[in-house]
Amino acid sequence: MALWSSESWTRISKVRGESPLIQCITNLVSMDLMANVLLSAGASPAMIHSVTEIPDFTPVVQGLCVNVGTLSDEWLPSMKAAAKIAREMGKPWVLDPVAAGASGFRLRACLELVEMRPTVIRGNGSEVMALAKATVGSCKGADSCVESTDALEAAKALAKSSGAVVAVSGAVDVVTDGERVVCAKNGVPMLQRITATGCSVTALITAFVAIDPQNPLEATASALAVFGVAAEMGMEMAKGPASLRMQLIDSLYNLDESTLRNRLNISSLPCL
Amino acid sequence: MALWSSESWTRISKVRGESPLIQCITNLVSMDLMANVLLSAGASPAMIHSVTEIPDFTPVVQGLCVNVGTLSDEWLPSMKAAAKIAREMGKPWVLDPVAAGASGFRLRACLELVEMRPTVIRGNGSEVMALAKATVGSCKGADSCVESTDALEAAKALAKSSGAVVAVSGAVDVVTDGERVVCAKNGVPMLQRITATGCSVTALITAFVAIDPQNPLEATASALAVFGVAAEMGMEMAKGPASLRMQLIDSLYNLDESTLRNRLNISSLPCL
Amino acid sequence: MALWSSESWTRISKVRGESPLIQCITNLVSMDLMANVLLSAGASPAMIHSVTEIPDFTPVVQGLCVNVGTLSDEWLPSMKAAAKIAREMGKPWVLDPVAAGASGFRLRACLELVEMRPTVIRGNGSEVMALAKATVGSCKGADSCVESTDALEAAKALAKSSGAVVAVSGAVDVVTDGERVVCAKNGVPMLQRITATGCSVTALITAFVAIDPQNPLEATASALAVFGVAAEMGMEMAKGPASLRMQLIDSLYNLDESTLRNRLNISSLPCL
Repeated sequence: MALWSSESWTRISKVRGESPLIQCITNLVSMDLMANVLLSAGASPAMIHSVTEIPDFTPVVQGLCVNVGTLSDEWLPSMKAAAKIAREMGKPWVLDPVAAGASGFRLRACLELVEMRPTVIRGNGSEVMALAKATVGSCKGADSCVESTDALEAAKALAKSSGAVVAVSGAVDVVTDGERVVCAKNGVPMLQRITATGCSVTALITAFVAIDPQNPLEATASALAVFGVAAEMGMEMAKGPASLRMQLIDSLYNLDESTLRNRLNISSLPCL
Repeated sequence: MALWSSESWTRISKVRGESPLIQCITNLVSMDLMANVLLSAGASPAMIHSVTEIPDFTPVVQGLCVNVGTLSDEWLPSMKAAAKIAREMGKPWVLDPVAAGASGFRLRACLELVEMRPTVIRGNGSEVMALAKATVGSCKGADSCVESTDALEAAKALAKSSGAVVAVSGAVDVVTDGERVVCAKNGVPMLQRITATGCSVTALITAFVAIDPQNPLEATASALAVFGVAAEMGMEMAKGPASLRMQLIDSLYNLDESTLRNRLNISSLPCL
Repeated sequence: MALWSSESWTRISKVRGESPLIQCITNLVSMDLMANVLLSAGASPAMIHSVTEIPDFTPVVQGLCVNVGTLSDEWLPSMKAAAKIAREMGKPWVLDPVAAGASGFRLRACLELVEMRPTVIRGNGSEVMALAKATVGSCKGADSCVESTDALEAAKALAKSSGAVVAVSGAVDVVTDGERVVCAKNGVPMLQRITATGCSVTALITAFVAIDPQNPLEATASALAVFGVAAEMGMEMAKGPASLRMQLIDSLYNLDESTLRNRLNISSLPCL
């Protein structure tokens, strides 16, 4: 644990110091919160999605976050074009397969993006299972009906087949590269009552992997834990979902080393 | 009043317990607040607008909210496709005809959507009058120049011609099915200084009608009053529009039965 | 200074009293904050971007704000169509050339918009230099690598060639019509950790120029200073970027004459 907290502190400090430029091609609901989470963590967000300027712009970013939340036929080519450049140039890119199993169109799009070899895939249990099994039928919109820990085997299989680190969010966040498994246990249940918190942690993962591209599994676990710690700190002052949202961002901005050390809760299996 | 407060409490409790999946095809300004209002009320929002996946997705939702705020030629077919499925499958769907009289394009689009038989139409006085009279010329963008109570006859006419329950927001909210008229008097004037509060209450109406589809007039009045009560509670702690926005969402999340009973103000005509 | 504070108070009072209708064709990240900033200042925002309804709608607005943040081939024609109507009808319109140097596509689009004779152009140092020199290569996304004061000569050149008032945001905001130079010094550094604050101040400039179209340089400086004063007031209560965002909007809503007089800091050259 001491190693995890020290390394996680190093990572958030690097994000603050280097301010990596993170391109986000993300859903329309999440843009405001995602940009503010990245800014409060010290990163530099750029919501640029036009397929016309991706050839100029994606080559200069440090990381790419692709989120299919409000997917459309118009935006999918941009996602693929940016992912292609990121992959070819060896830049980290992270996929958030929102509601992957909600329709055939969405599932196919997500599977095509998975084939473009994201560095990390972060979803909830239902989304990861939909991708691992390539089947439509997540029970409900963007919410999950599967505990993250129950999706562990699906996550391992997806990691092996895709070559990506796979993170499954839930009461406990599970991160795996197909062999190793790490559990990030920080966070609060009320996050589920705030839109785009999952999307935003995916963007934070992108920033962490951008400044530590050699250790995507560890960087992913650190980002999940740092976001969870900020949520716990925020929850102590919050009175509901909207004040939690505000306090979370403020806490992420103000997070210091001793608080992180005292709160960080990352471990190996078993998660619970 | 005792009946209204008891039934309204039953409805918000059902939203919390059943967490209805509400598809929102809404304007780009409103997405964040609308999703957070639905989540804080206990519903499950899904901002899915691609015409490609509507045939897969709309059949599984419990309610559909269509809002034309940032209308474009690209989004209108999605709105119609989803409304068609909702109507054919007997699912409740609610129309928010933002700035209906601002242009010929917008008015025609709204009238076409009205013909697709929404369960509820919620607008301000100017919007309802534009629809009832089928004329361009609302005085100003998304704001109204007509008191809700002055639009009552237009609302009744629109309800009769469309078969929808019509709600007119204002200092007092008026709800009618063409025959009966109910007045929902909760709320605070500062809501007009926060973007997308009208859009968000339309989404909340959708959630209430989704869990009580047999009583669209009553469910609509309950949703308007619950939102207004949350605004009143928030206003006691707010110092301006942005803190009100936060407090409103927290209050909606925390609303309990006794507070609702003490504050709820729904009545029959005369409204004032 | 007494003159500046008295005139600035007159301008914000006019915005509150006349509630000018401001059309915003803006990036997807900024819509929520921009609308709320305009509402809290007393203006009436309208996010209407469909090229189909611009011929009906733009003629009735008092001002137009065009922001290219999430530019695409689909939105650019709307920006041009609205700018053309504004220019032909003598309505003020303001351009925010976000990340102008980030790609050839974006630079060309911005230069074409500049040719349509905006009343005011507001950007950061890098953006203004990219426009003045017509070269790609801003160092980083939407952030600047140039101090506003170092971009002064570029701003003057751009003002002369375009006929627009040019405002360069930074630690000190610099405003010039090519001859005169005014420095607006209010504000706080933490604004850079909140997304869309630059976009929102451009919208506020639009509202100020809309109610004082004969004095675009003075109205622009007033808007920048008023926003900066609200940020300073908010900063006294804020604990991080998210609470600052909330407090800023509340402070803008509550701003009174004596506070403005005590805090306003506008001067001629030298700025520092």
